[in-house]
Amino acid sequence: MAETEARVRFGIIGCANIARKLARAINLAPNSILHAIGSRSIEKAKRFVTVNGLDPQRVKIYGSYEQVVEDPSVDAVYMPLPTSLHVHWAVMAARNGKHVLLEKPTALDVGELDRIVGACESNGVQFMDGSMWLHHPRTAKMKDMFFDSKLLGDVNYIYSTSTTSPSPEFLESDIRVKGNLDALGALGDLGWYCLGAVLWAKNYQLPTVVTALPDVTKNSDGVIISCSASIQYKEPAAAGATTNAIIHCSFLSDTSMDLAMTGSGGSLNLDDFIIPHRESSASLEFTKGAKFVDLHIGWNVKPEKVVVNCELPQEALMIKEFARLVAGIRTSVLLPDRKWPEISRKTQMLVDAVKKSVDLGCEPVYL
Amino acid sequence: MAETEARVRFGIIGCANIARKLARAINLAPNSILHAIGSRSIEKAKRFVTVNGLDPQRVKIYGSYEQVVEDPSVDAVYMPLPTSLHVHWAVMAARNGKHVLLEKPTALDVGELDRIVGACESNGVQFMDGSMWLHHPRTAKMKDMFFDSKLLGDVNYIYSTSTTSPSPEFLESDIRVKGNLDALGALGDLGWYCLGAVLWAKNYQLPTVVTALPDVTKNSDGVIISCSASIQYKEPAAAGATTNAIIHCSFLSDTSMDLAMTGSGGSLNLDDFIIPHRESSASLEFTKGAKFVDLHIGWNVKPEKVVVNCELPQEALMIKEFARLVAGIRTSVLLPDRKWPEISRKTQMLVDAVKKSVDLGCEPVYL
Repeated sequence: MAETEARVRFGIIGCANIARKLARAINLAPNSILHAIGSRSIEKAKRFVTVNGLDPQRVKIYGSYEQVVEDPSVDAVYMPLPTSLHVHWAVMAARNGKHVLLEKPTALDVGELDRIVGACESNGVQFMDGSMWLHHPRTAKMKDMFFDSKLLGDVNYIYSTSTTSPSPEFLESDIRVKGNLDALGALGDLGWYCLGAVLWAKNYQLPTVVTALPDVTKNSDGVIISCSASIQYKEPAAAGATTNAIIHCSFLSDTSMDLAMTGSGGSLNLDDFIIPHRESSASLEFTKGAKFVDLHIGWNVKPEKVVVNCELPQEALMIKEFARLVAGIRTSVLLPDRKWPEISRKTQMLVDAVKKSVDLGCEPVYL
Repeated sequence: MAETEARVRFGIIGCANIARKLARAINLAPNSILHAIGSRSIEKAKRFVTVNGLDPQRVKIYGSYEQVVEDPSVDAVYMPLPTSLHVHWAVMAARNGKHVLLEKPTALDVGELDRIVGACESNGVQFMDGSMWLHHPRTAKMKDMFFDSKLLGDVNYIYSTSTTSPSPEFLESDIRVKGNLDALGALGDLGWYCLGAVLWAKNYQLPTVVTALPDVTKNSDGVIISCSASIQYKEPAAAGATTNAIIHCSFLSDTSMDLAMTGSGGSLNLDDFIIPHRESSASLEFTKGAKFVDLHIGWNVKPEKVVVNCELPQEALMIKEFARLVAGIRTSVLLPDRKWPEISRKTQMLVDAVKKSVDLGCEPVYL
């Protein structure tokens, strides 16, 4: 596996900023290698290789996306394209037998995503979306500490935000806020993570109902640049308390990304759940069995900090896992792992539900 | 002022748990002294004095609330009573010329509060509610750092929670969840702080519209034990971005109390805004100008911590401020400070608005 030949050979189509991060991750992961980069402009692709210090002897440079997708020596394609282009290129890649690593939001709606996932399934290739935080060891640690061990009791409230404050120009002209390119705006770009975190915390159980809050802000193109939503899990009475979640995503506030979960027995707080402050390690804070001391003049406990080290950046761990699956499929040891398209599909369903609720003037949308 | 005689003499009516904290605070503040305690049961009042290590030679013990309110040597009355009793006893205290320090929620609705505040105004006595956190030096520090100095840019999103997880018995029988005693439930007991924090952050400007979220939970008495709300400030377009807030209060999750504010230029986080973890000092965390470093593999900044020392517990600082105002009125140096009833009134208005929205099935309530 350490030999270059055994590594999964990635092609990247599109030279978006995020592609630089993934190019590095592909070469950091022990089981993959960047094999081809394609842009609609050969000059841009060449510049990408130079700027990122890649070896032009080892990376094929193409002046089109087609050439990458059709190159028989490419095993997998990473696609950091505007959302409206996903279905076209992901389906084409799958039909060419390429495994598909697709940036989020995966599609404009779940119908499109089903076409992509269907093409991957019928061509026997792996599908995964680019939600890196799911691959950070902190995420596994949280699952272990707080859910499998019930340290928080039953989690009944989840709050998640993702905000970033781009320039005024961004809000009118970036692809992520153009109706014909990324029509899901902040909901697709940022809310994707928040909704994914709720699903993650609920073990990918779908909620009962999703209701957008009235605080939605759109730009002149009608694209959401800020919104919030209430997510409700109405468990049968016999199953005990219900779970409620609130998410908030916005291109109008300084960068922040909080994930908070509270249960009957404790609470958990992360302030960098999507991209940790540092690569080498990440932390979480939790409070367990918090009560006030006598006279209510303070707490019996203070938040405890847990630091989780990270052998590789989370995006390299994502690539490593993806390449492991691809290698297994290539050698007929594994079938494509349906877990990953299922996670993407449920996340996309929630994105769609929030969008629909916004479009309906904040009416509840039942799932 | 250091002499006992010059101190403001407090009477307390009711021996609720919170009264113990305030009895201590009254004796900690340099300008006040606990002068009388009244309970409907003289035995309970006696026990209160013993349990709290008070000097029975210096504290009058009464077997009724009336005796406290009518005692000419009592200057001010602190009332930790069930909300439904507030209007009766606060009005009576005011008519007897007593300054009124009233536990929150101040009343069942703003109409009742207006009767209380009206009685205080026409009798020339000070009114204040028991929101202690407003008196913590951290609160003043935040105002200075983040608002007056615009460290966060324009704050456009506020999130505040208050949760506590009492016993199952509490949820059915505690006064705070009984329809005939504290009909506002978690909204009055906990949501009061969250709504107060939003008003505080907006310099006591009232929002345009309040909408309860569909995640409301009630007990068998029909009292709210968990709810959330969206608070919107729809500023005129010319004034720039609007401000949105979300609050969440619940008797169903472990103790937590978060206050987060984000603006275009930074964000602020407190995880103990109502009762700090420790008495001697409290901290806040802020992030300013957060961006991702090149390749988006981490942040350019980490949250910075600011520690604020506290000479006296926040409840003693509240008493000190209240007693300062009372002393000023007593010596005709000051008129009653209208700021405090105004803060209470606006908070009560928001509590009423959330309650109304809940009652209307989450319809928006315009203010």
